[in-house]
Amino acid sequence: MTQLPDAAINATLSALQFNDDGLIPAIAQQHDSGEVLMMAWMNADAVRETLETGRVCYWSQSRGKLWRKGESSGQVQTLIRFGYDCDGDTILLDVDQKGVACHTGRRRCFFTWVGPSGPEVTDDVVTDPSELYGKS
Amino acid sequence: MTQLPDAAINATLSALQFNDDGLIPAIAQQHDSGEVLMMAWMNADAVRETLETGRVCYWSQSRGKLWRKGESSGQVQTLIRFGYDCDGDTILLDVDQKGVACHTGRRRCFFTWVGPSGPEVTDDVVTDPSELYGKS
Repeated sequence: MTQLPDAAINATLSALQFNDDGLIPAIAQQHDSGEVLMMAWMNADAVRETLETGRVCYWSQSRGKLWRKGESSGQVQTLIRFGYDCDGDTILLDVDQKGVACHTGRRRCFFTWVGPSGPEVTDDVVTDPSELYGKS
Repeated sequence: MTQLPDAAINATLSALQFNDDGLIPAIAQQHDSGEVLMMAWMNADAVRETLETGRVCYWSQSRGKLWRKGESSGQVQTLIRFGYDCDGDTILLDVDQKGVACHTGRRRCFFTWVGPSGPEVTDDVVTDPSELYGKS
């Protein structure tokens, strides 16, 4: 994505509806295949950093800090387009995911689907999770 | 989707992580085109009804009741597949959306994308919203 002017970033932040915790859900979709990779949360700082840098940055609720996707694992998400919904309360990110999005080593976090015998795992692990963490 | 046995529905409900308000976000994706149509919330009753009937039912936070998608507008979502993510805290619905998903009369709720001049509406209204509501 081309560098966005501050005015465009500020207008975007003004249009978004953050919840009482200052967060907004963000869905990441692989731009060419259409796969929904994951859903995570952003605060205003994460939105700003994502729009400024073109690399997706979330807010980690468990760690209570900015989560620069791929910072540990190398599996970065490059922003292609940044969209949001009619109510301004959900973000949709068109991204280019390097490697795998999921900490389990699967391409996407949505790999469990409900069938007649109950939830079934449909996607294989493509990268050993032990290879993902500890990388710079 | 074929009728699911109670055991499969109960196993699914047990695997999902509802938040402190008893809700979980659900992303609806058009099964053939891959368009992300909308994101809304479900409670356990909405999940159960969706899996039992094969018609998507959300929980309306603003109205405080079950929201059978398309009940007023006729724009129903037929469930193709019900999935959830690695943490069990986000649902992904493969659906077949009749007509338009968005109350604005657009196919999907994600029709605003950020460009150099700020947020830009990219999708046209395909159905006049005044034609959508009041229908049985």
